[in-house]
Parts: sequence; structure tokens; C-alpha cells
Amino acid sequence: MARMNPLAPEADVDLDIAVLAIGDELLNGELADTNTAAIGRLLNAHGYRLREGRTVPDDEAAIIAALRELASRHGVVAVTGGLGPTRDDLTARAAAQAFDRPLVLNDEALALIRAFFRDHALEMEPRNEKQALLPQKCTVLPNPLGTAPGFLLQEGRCLLLFFPGVPVEMQAMAEAELLPRLEALSGDRPPQCERILKIFGLSEPRIESLLDGQPLPTGVAIAFGVDFPLVHLKLRARGEDAEERLDQAEVLVQRRMGDFIVARGRDTLAQTVARLLTAHGLSLSLAESCTGGLVAAWLTEIPGASAFLERGAVTYSNQAKNDWLGVSKRILHEQGAVSEACARAMATGLRQSTRTDITVAVTGIAGPDGGTDEKPVGTVFIALSANDAEQAKGYRFGGNREQIRKLSACMALEWIRRYLMERAQPKS
Amino acid sequence: MARMNPLAPEADVDLDIAVLAIGDELLNGELADTNTAAIGRLLNAHGYRLREGRTVPDDEAAIIAALRELASRHGVVAVTGGLGPTRDDLTARAAAQAFDRPLVLNDEALALIRAFFRDHALEMEPRNEKQALLPQKCTVLPNPLGTAPGFLLQEGRCLLLFFPGVPVEMQAMAEAELLPRLEALSGDRPPQCERILKIFGLSEPRIESLLDGQPLPTGVAIAFGVDFPLVHLKLRARGEDAEERLDQAEVLVQRRMGDFIVARGRDTLAQTVARLLTAHGLSLSLAESCTGGLVAAWLTEIPGASAFLERGAVTYSNQAKNDWLGVSKRILHEQGAVSEACARAMATGLRQSTRTDITVAVTGIAGPDGGTDEKPVGTVFIALSANDAEQAKGYRFGGNREQIRKLSACMALEWIRRYLMERAQPKS
Repeated sequence: MARMNPLAPEADVDLDIAVLAIGDELLNGELADTNTAAIGRLLNAHGYRLREGRTVPDDEAAIIAALRELASRHGVVAVTGGLGPTRDDLTARAAAQAFDRPLVLNDEALALIRAFFRDHALEMEPRNEKQALLPQKCTVLPNPLGTAPGFLLQEGRCLLLFFPGVPVEMQAMAEAELLPRLEALSGDRPPQCERILKIFGLSEPRIESLLDGQPLPTGVAIAFGVDFPLVHLKLRARGEDAEERLDQAEVLVQRRMGDFIVARGRDTLAQTVARLLTAHGLSLSLAESCTGGLVAAWLTEIPGASAFLERGAVTYSNQAKNDWLGVSKRILHEQGAVSEACARAMATGLRQSTRTDITVAVTGIAGPDGGTDEKPVGTVFIALSANDAEQAKGYRFGGNREQIRKLSACMALEWIRRYLMERAQPKS
Repeated sequence: MARMNPLAPEADVDLDIAVLAIGDELLNGELADTNTAAIGRLLNAHGYRLREGRTVPDDEAAIIAALRELASRHGVVAVTGGLGPTRDDLTARAAAQAFDRPLVLNDEALALIRAFFRDHALEMEPRNEKQALLPQKCTVLPNPLGTAPGFLLQEGRCLLLFFPGVPVEMQAMAEAELLPRLEALSGDRPPQCERILKIFGLSEPRIESLLDGQPLPTGVAIAFGVDFPLVHLKLRARGEDAEERLDQAEVLVQRRMGDFIVARGRDTLAQTVARLLTAHGLSLSLAESCTGGLVAAWLTEIPGASAFLERGAVTYSNQAKNDWLGVSKRILHEQGAVSEACARAMATGLRQSTRTDITVAVTGIAGPDGGTDEKPVGTVFIALSANDAEQAKGYRFGGNREQIRKLSACMALEWIRRYLMERAQPKS
């Protein structure tokens, strides 16, 4: 995925890139800023590094100060947000002020806004014209997915690109407008290459211990990240043979903890499972109680999930477990809906009635209520049924409701992954 | 929710608070930083405002520069991340360097770490001792949920609090350690009050137009945010009678666009629906095709969802639609799985077999593949069945797979909300 030019000489410095995210909603807790991460991901995939992120409210003085400060220290600044039609959208005016330019009605921007409304058969509100008020002598950046055009300013040695804050619009524009300009600026410098290995079931210190006494190839650095409940192990290198050294490092890591690596790069655990199911040509059905459809929702995020997902049941009530999964009233009465016997009956019952190749069941107590001394909050049972396997097991997970649900859903996917890894290789 | 002191005089300035988030993973696109938003939410709920967010990589020089710069401009800086046991966790060392203090083994921190491992019956790795290396003369902040203690430094007029980056640990510590210190610092200043109204079905400019010629009470400001597909309308005021003026403003907004307000404050649309179902004492079952369990997953995030959610079906295959929902093979063959007739049959079939009070069905084409000229990507049918209502309708949603799924899931919830709003008031 990384853009490589292994023959170019190693550069002294990278392009120094920062993101400025603008919006009250990013600082008052309404929304987490995802644009910085999205730009970081795009840059990383193409061998560039984001050096700094900054977030300021819809406050003209704060925006002006941040723009000036970032432009004085960075080569490229990507700005997101505040280009909308409403009163609290102040970015264009602040940019004009920050760099002592008049704010003028930009005919090109106005034409783009009009065309967007015409093409989408929408009525243009007069206030949408405000979105064409831009700093003088800027370059207009078209926004194919929304009404707010972006713009570009060159201030001294800094290139500033202004994008709307709506993530899908920002992302399309960053790909179309930011990347080509970075490529033009960076010439032939060799970028940093990175591999991300996503690990489920080992803590950071445990991973570091496993890697001790296992020297990595020269110049390969490791770093960690957490995306609960996964730990991300990052291998990085730069220079001529970076990809080869990373290949070697990956082999070493694989040897120490291969079983725990559940996904690589931008993939998720759900994508690993989807790919394995597709490669094996096997179908899957799900019976979810405490995860309430989370496993199904993760899998169906993936385009083409209909190729392997036959169906899913969110069986919150005992009646549903009896009707759709054939769990006997005796099990529900004697051992309870949260029991190994129930999980097993859910998986086998679903497989018998649907003739799916693999079925997985999750039942547990996600909390905050519903726990007992015998079955406290976090008690979760998972079962898998296939023509050559019947497995069921109980866990006691820690954490709050959200964490218990996520851990349970990941563990259910992990059972499918391990089952498929242990089978003979697919014939493809 | 806001901490109010209506008799206090209006202050000239608020406490000036910034967040510094540390971690490569926040800038290379692996993870979006949610800690800044979480701290912002906590502050906002207690009447404080977050003024700036900043994100830097696991790079000692960058952390030192950011700490010094933020401490020189803000009264309080909350720092998250980089307190872990691995080599790329540099925050404590950088803090010591930034403020010219030696890094020393802190006995209190070491005792806390040892106690955490002992209490959780975990084996302590030698490298966990590194987490007790802290700047001299800091105050240790206990971390009840993890191994990394935090710490506090007073540097000139700035109070710096250092928290781990793991969101659940950070949040518990921010509540326990940050809030009481802010209260001690802020004395009796009146905070800004805010109401958030979440709107589904109206664009920002449309909302502004509806509010034109409808003057709000003096000193009430409005601002917008977007959490796709909802628009957040924010009403803000400060001073003596802020809550009363916000009450009046809310009545005015309610009058202009009440039907479109689907949630308030920190609530989600799913929470509104959950509350209405609970108040009416009605049960719900779901039949999801293109949303693949998303509606069920959103509803089951809510503690106590088992009180109203009877079951959900993720019927990706035609066989599942026939088995569990009783959709006839004739409808599936003649009109197709993505049709108004199929949506209607899914909802009525599920209601008949489960005797749930309300059933809702969603079927559609989320893309990127599967569209035809007649039924392009974004074609979605929704149906609702209840003893006094049978409704079904088709939509053509724009956007990518993720957006179409989210819009479809929100629209399904909105159907339930509208149905419940139109019924007689609950008897409670």
C-alpha cells in the first residue's frame, strides 16, 4: 500500500504536515474529530507522516492565531471545517484576516455551488452564496459531494488547503487535492514504510517480552497502539531496502506470536474473517444475545458480506431462543439463558435449522444490571458449531457494558478465525 | 446537567483549558482520538469549556515543545497517552525534560502499580516498573482501572494533569481528578449553559431559514454541528437567567421544527426510541436486511434494552426471509427481496409469528455492488407493522455503503419514534 521508491536517496527531512480541525462540536464533546485520523491514514498509506493535529472552536481569533502559528512552522497545513453556510462557519473569513487578504465573492466558487444545487435538483438558499466568499487570490478546490467548495492558499513557504468538515466530503477532496500536491512537493524522497499487525489476546508488555532477545533487522523500529480490545504492533523502516527489512521483521514477529495476529494493515478482524470464509467457500449464521447484533453489523459493513452471511438472530428473549434456535425450554429453565449449555444449543440449533456451514452463538451479561454472585456482569458463553466441530466455553470479561459487548463480539469472530485457520487450507 | 450558579456575577474569562493527546496512532490514521471529545463532553456537562486540542506523535522533542507552549498559554492542560510500559511511551520523561525536573522512581506510584497487579492476580512484568518513573515533586494520580498511574504538575500558573491514553481509564481519572480541581480553581463563576437539539430530516440552511424572523431571547446564541445523518442545533447562553432564556428559546425552536427534533442533549435517536417504547410498555422486533443488525446493535447498546427488544432478525438470504419472517417465495421471486411488498411482508410476518407489539423491517441495496437501473444503490424500503398501523415506503438514499446503512437505520428508528409520538400519550 505504501508508495515506494527504493532507489531514491534517503531524505534528511519529511514533508512537515499538520491538520487544523475547526468546530465547537469537536471540543464540547458532541463529536470526536475523525478528520485528523482520516488524513493521517491517507498520508500514512502513501508514505507521508502527519506531524501535528490541532483543534480550535468556531472562534475567529482562535482560528486566526492557529492558522498563523501552524503556517509559520509547517510546510503543509490541511484545515477542516467551518466552510458551511451558517453563521458559525468562520474559516474563510478567518483565513483572509490571518493572511491580510480581502474576503471577496469568488465567481468560480459561486458557479460550483449553483451547479451542485442544479445537479441535485435542490433549491439553493440565499445563504449558500456565503460559501463563495473566499480570500482573494486563492485557488478553488471543487467539492464533488457537497455544497461547500474548498480552497488553497500559498503563504510564504506553507501550502494551506481548506476542506469542509463533513468527513465524506473532506476525504474525497483530500484524496483528489492533497495527495497530488504532496507528490509534487516531495519529489523522489523515500517515505517511511510501516506494517501494522493487529493482535488479540496479548497485552503490550507481554508482546514486548515475547520480542525481547529477538533482535529485529537494523533500522526497524516498533511502536504500539490500542484499539480496544486489539493491540496494534507497528513495524517501521525507512530507506533503500525498507520493505525487505520489514518483511524479515514480520517473519520474526509471526514466529513469536503468529497465532495472535488477527489482522494486518487497515483490515479489521471482521475483514479477516470475511476473507477466510470467502476463501473457504463456507457460509455463516449468527445467534447473538448480549452482543445484540454487533457481530452481524461489523460483518455486514463489509461489501459482499451476503456471499457468506446466511443470517443472524438477535435473540434477546427466551421465546426467540426457543423459536428460532430450538433451545429447549428445559435448558432455559434449568441452566438459564446465560450458560454453556444454552450457547451450545443456540449454535447447534441454528445450524440444524439453517444448514449453514458454521454457526456461532454468544450469550452473556453485558451489564450494568443482571449480574448475580454465580454469574456476575461480564459472564459470557460462546459456542461454535460446524460439521467437524462443536465447541463451547465461558468467559469472565472485565469492563463496562460497551467493553464487554466489544470483547464478546471480537471473541466470537476470533473463534471463527481460529476454526478456519485450523482447517485444511482452502482449495483456491 | 450543567452546573449552575445563577446568582454569581458573570466572569470576564473562563478557565482556559487545553487537551494534549499523545500517540503515533492518533496521527497515522490507526485510531481517531476520542479522549479530547470525552474531556470536552465532561467539561461541557459541568459548565466548563475546552479551548484547544492538540495531538502530537510519540516523539520526545514534539511532546516537550507542545507541553511548554500549552503551559505558557493555558491555565489547565490535560495530557493523555504515553504513560504505558513500552519503549514508545515517553510522556513522563518528556514532562520532566520540559520543566527541568529530574525523572525519579516514585515510590507511591510503584506501590500503586504493584497493588494493581496483586489485586487483579496478574503477573507484573519488570517493564511495568518503568511506569513509576515520574518527574520529581509531582502528585501521583491513582488509576483504578489500569496499571499506569497519572500525575499532576504545577508549572507557574498552569496546572498539568497527565492521564493514560486508554479511554476508559482516562475518563474515570478525569472525573475523579480533573473536575474537583477545576471547581477549586473556578470558584463561583457562572458557566456557559447549552442545550443540544438533534434534528433528522432538515439541512443546516433549512434550519436557519426556519429560524429567521423568529428572534431568540437576548443573549441566546445558536451554533450547528453534524453527526451524520443528524444535525445538532446548539442553543447557548451565559449569566444570571441563562437556563430560563434557554427554556424560552427551546420552546420557539420546538414550535418551528418540533417534529424533526429526534433527541436532546447526550441522548441518541436510539435512546429516544428506547425511552418511548419503555414509557408505552410496548415490545419491538426487528427484521434487518441491508442494515445487517445495525438497528439492533444501536438499541442493545442501551442498558435495559431487553425490556422492550423481543428479537431481531438479520435476514441476508431469501431463505431466512422465508423461514423466519414468512415472506412468500412468490414475493421474493416476482418483486424481489428489495421491494415494498417484501418489506411489508417482513414486518407483518415477524409480528404475526412473534406477537410483538411493533415490528419494523428494512431491506435495500447498500452497495457498492448490487444496484440495477430500476433499483440503484441506495434503494431502501422500510415497513412498520402494529395492531393499528401497517406502513411501507421506498427511499433513494445517496452516499456510500456506510452512509446508506446509517441513513436506513436512522430512518427505521425514526419510523418507530413517529409511530409512538402519534399514538395517545403513555398512561404512566
